[in-house]
Amino acid sequence: MPDSFERSRPDLFDLRRTGIDPDYWYPLAWSGEIRKGKATGRHFAGEPIVLVRGESGRVYALEDRCAHRQVPLHAGVVEGDCLRCCYHGWTYDMSGRCIDVPYLGKDKLPNGVRAYPCQEKEGLVFIFPGDAARAEMTPLPVLPSISDPAYRTRRFGREVACHYSFMHENLIDMNHQFLHRKQMGQIRPRYLGHDAGEDWLEVRYSFARTAGRQPLGERLIFGTREGKAEPNDSLMTIRTDYPYQGLTIDLKSDRVMQLWIVYVPVDKDQKRIRTFGLLSVKKPRAAFLLHAAWPLLGWFTERIFSEDRWIVEQEQKAHDALGGNMNQEPFPVIRALQDLLARRGRLLSF
Amino acid sequence: MPDSFERSRPDLFDLRRTGIDPDYWYPLAWSGEIRKGKATGRHFAGEPIVLVRGESGRVYALEDRCAHRQVPLHAGVVEGDCLRCCYHGWTYDMSGRCIDVPYLGKDKLPNGVRAYPCQEKEGLVFIFPGDAARAEMTPLPVLPSISDPAYRTRRFGREVACHYSFMHENLIDMNHQFLHRKQMGQIRPRYLGHDAGEDWLEVRYSFARTAGRQPLGERLIFGTREGKAEPNDSLMTIRTDYPYQGLTIDLKSDRVMQLWIVYVPVDKDQKRIRTFGLLSVKKPRAAFLLHAAWPLLGWFTERIFSEDRWIVEQEQKAHDALGGNMNQEPFPVIRALQDLLARRGRLLSF
Amino acid sequence: MPDSFERSRPDLFDLRRTGIDPDYWYPLAWSGEIRKGKATGRHFAGEPIVLVRGESGRVYALEDRCAHRQVPLHAGVVEGDCLRCCYHGWTYDMSGRCIDVPYLGKDKLPNGVRAYPCQEKEGLVFIFPGDAARAEMTPLPVLPSISDPAYRTRRFGREVACHYSFMHENLIDMNHQFLHRKQMGQIRPRYLGHDAGEDWLEVRYSFARTAGRQPLGERLIFGTREGKAEPNDSLMTIRTDYPYQGLTIDLKSDRVMQLWIVYVPVDKDQKRIRTFGLLSVKKPRAAFLLHAAWPLLGWFTERIFSEDRWIVEQEQKAHDALGGNMNQEPFPVIRALQDLLARRGRLLSF
Repeated sequence: MPDSFERSRPDLFDLRRTGIDPDYWYPLAWSGEIRKGKATGRHFAGEPIVLVRGESGRVYALEDRCAHRQVPLHAGVVEGDCLRCCYHGWTYDMSGRCIDVPYLGKDKLPNGVRAYPCQEKEGLVFIFPGDAARAEMTPLPVLPSISDPAYRTRRFGREVACHYSFMHENLIDMNHQFLHRKQMGQIRPRYLGHDAGEDWLEVRYSFARTAGRQPLGERLIFGTREGKAEPNDSLMTIRTDYPYQGLTIDLKSDRVMQLWIVYVPVDKDQKRIRTFGLLSVKKPRAAFLLHAAWPLLGWFTERIFSEDRWIVEQEQKAHDALGGNMNQEPFPVIRALQDLLARRGRLLSF
Repeated sequence: MPDSFERSRPDLFDLRRTGIDPDYWYPLAWSGEIRKGKATGRHFAGEPIVLVRGESGRVYALEDRCAHRQVPLHAGVVEGDCLRCCYHGWTYDMSGRCIDVPYLGKDKLPNGVRAYPCQEKEGLVFIFPGDAARAEMTPLPVLPSISDPAYRTRRFGREVACHYSFMHENLIDMNHQFLHRKQMGQIRPRYLGHDAGEDWLEVRYSFARTAGRQPLGERLIFGTREGKAEPNDSLMTIRTDYPYQGLTIDLKSDRVMQLWIVYVPVDKDQKRIRTFGLLSVKKPRAAFLLHAAWPLLGWFTERIFSEDRWIVEQEQKAHDALGGNMNQEPFPVIRALQDLLARRGRLLSF
Repeated sequence: MPDSFERSRPDLFDLRRTGIDPDYWYPLAWSGEIRKGKATGRHFAGEPIVLVRGESGRVYALEDRCAHRQVPLHAGVVEGDCLRCCYHGWTYDMSGRCIDVPYLGKDKLPNGVRAYPCQEKEGLVFIFPGDAARAEMTPLPVLPSISDPAYRTRRFGREVACHYSFMHENLIDMNHQFLHRKQMGQIRPRYLGHDAGEDWLEVRYSFARTAGRQPLGERLIFGTREGKAEPNDSLMTIRTDYPYQGLTIDLKSDRVMQLWIVYVPVDKDQKRIRTFGLLSVKKPRAAFLLHAAWPLLGWFTERIFSEDRWIVEQEQKAHDALGGNMNQEPFPVIRALQDLLARRGRLLSF
């Protein structure tokens, strides 16, 4: 039995207390949530951030604490492209500069608040929480094209009470299909291999139905499949492209499904995340079929997602109760993924 | 820009972790809440205190923990002017002495519990939580006379989840009228000056309506005011008389409103207070007008108070999240008030 | 006044932070709660334990954490007499050995989970949480015979938010009858004496009605009693047989009532317990009377129990707030009981 089967020593390095690398673009909201003339408060890893869409329609992001008395700016009033604090009326422009304190002369204006680089793409509002100087050279992630007419895309997301690493590991280890036995019938994944680079890891599976009737939701994603599949005609690829994650399904080299997802830490301890996901499904030749089945597909994915959410929250709770990692992990892909997430993360101080 | 504009270093002295001076009289209840033959449990800065009105009608205050097993005495039974613990029946007199343990001889009576000096005035039950030897030489606060027929007085109070210093600063800095823009229309205060002594600080403002229609509640307090006011005919005075606070409004030297308020720490960390306030409004010549408008005035002050409560609770939350003070404060009155509150307070150990 | 009347120093030994001795049999469930083919999660002193009744009908107990990723096994699937984890399908037998990981060869099976000795008796499922090697030589407790036709037995139990020592002290100190003055009328206990051994303590009381009408519930347990009782014809014996507790009532040497009860720590800090109790009442000559009054007896004991629960939870809260023991205890029986519980307990590390 290999060494790695030994239970880890909880006093050593702990992946679940590793902070995510802030020098990437992270979504904090769907574009539709940030309405013109409104300010919305969000959090990234414990930092309060206010998202504002002013008169011009452009979204910007500031530290969500007035420089005066630290009260939330998202309770303030949007004036043009500026934001006025609700308490004493201190006012900030898009760059976070304080441009007005009603009871002070303009020559005595105090320090302002931090601004975060902010961009919108494919209906998501991204901010760059790390070193702003690195924002421009850091590309936004590649997203499934919502405008491609061959696919239909579903947005989804919610809060999950766990460290982001549990989410990455959950998705990449397809051996957990037993968890979804009620939704996924008797699909049996087969590990085909994996590759890794400096900041990515990709694992491939084939899958076959071993028994049972195919549920309707599964049929929509995978198509109707009679008998056992041959490894060559089905391919599921799951890839962590730090800090994002993706999953694609190809049937006979035809991409029938594509998922993009990211897990954004909400609190300082990074034990809660908000997910933002885009799920693109190829339209069948008779497109109205997908249209008719769309609500069912939503139900199907929500059920699977809620099972995953429940189990990763159980993992977080067990980790909290044990005060460290006690896992024994026989699957090399998970160990490689944990190395990658640890390597790219930042030490959290508790 | 002055030095004080620099953000304070949070590792230094922290006013928000300063305990209030216990060597003053603090109200714990309205007289009407303490009914004859009943015991009522309250807290001062984490200390449980039971208020009892026995047969004689006199209210007294004891440590709210039986000397035997520390269970709350307020769950006990009032017998004459004594209080019998609900558990094993140990009984205490008004001075906290244990006068009966039903299953012990009278010659073996155990130690009793602490008694607090206790007095009633103008419908408030005050206790002296500090050194009892200093109670007699410490006067009760001067309160707006509820019996003066020229005024009508409203009692109000509730719990607020913040340190008392946030309340003092909120009231004394009239530049926060922007918070009440929906209630107070476009009133613009003008700072006239301030004075300070060993344990008090007083600041004066004039105020003028700059635009908009005067809301009804405002008209009741300030009277009808057409056009801009001259500084000389309106005067708002706010005064911290440690540990109490007051606010008066004079129009052409006629006192139209007087507020007395105190913020009593409830929990040990002093992050929650209970306010007790008396608001006296001068009756207009046609007194029935005030009578008719009284409920509206209540609504008006409740709305303003709930906005204040919300914002000071936001301040406390930000202070907790930041772990210290990060404010930059340009208004010298606030800095002087903070000095006063810090000077008179006691270090809290966490 | 004796030394023990001095308030204890809270920095010294603290009985309320003493862990119960795990080298005894403790019930975790009623037999009827553990149904065939089901797995049920429970806790002993913070350790999660899954109780499983497989195909064979025999109950077994395992650590309730999969050896793989620590998720609760009680959410898994019972297969024959084995338990399959809900997440990746790892499977354990009754001894905790891992016998299947669906995606690994049988020659590579990982370490399993801890198994607890487990037995059923008189409708209770007991486990042995300590050193398993000592389980066999440690007898199960003697329980009131549920099958004795002369008695009728009521099972009861619930969670209480306090250390087990408060429960032992509550029951053994009959001077607390004042707490139940509404249920128990004016019963006055009289202490007759006590005896103690290495791991037990027994105290005896007589009791007399001093005034008032006898409530119906009391009459059912004690019989109808006119006038004052003579010490010789009533005997209440309360006995702590570590870690269990019992109470018997004899009237003229006839045992009319017998209670067996145990307080099982739920959480790691042992500030919450689950009680399991068996209350046997002798059937009156006209047995249908007991049958008719049975619901009333339930109501009567529930009321008394809920008063006791409330007061011991107050004791725990006061202990938490004070950070240690401040009691002054004049009753020598309680001091002897505290010595016994401290002597047999284990130091808890916080």
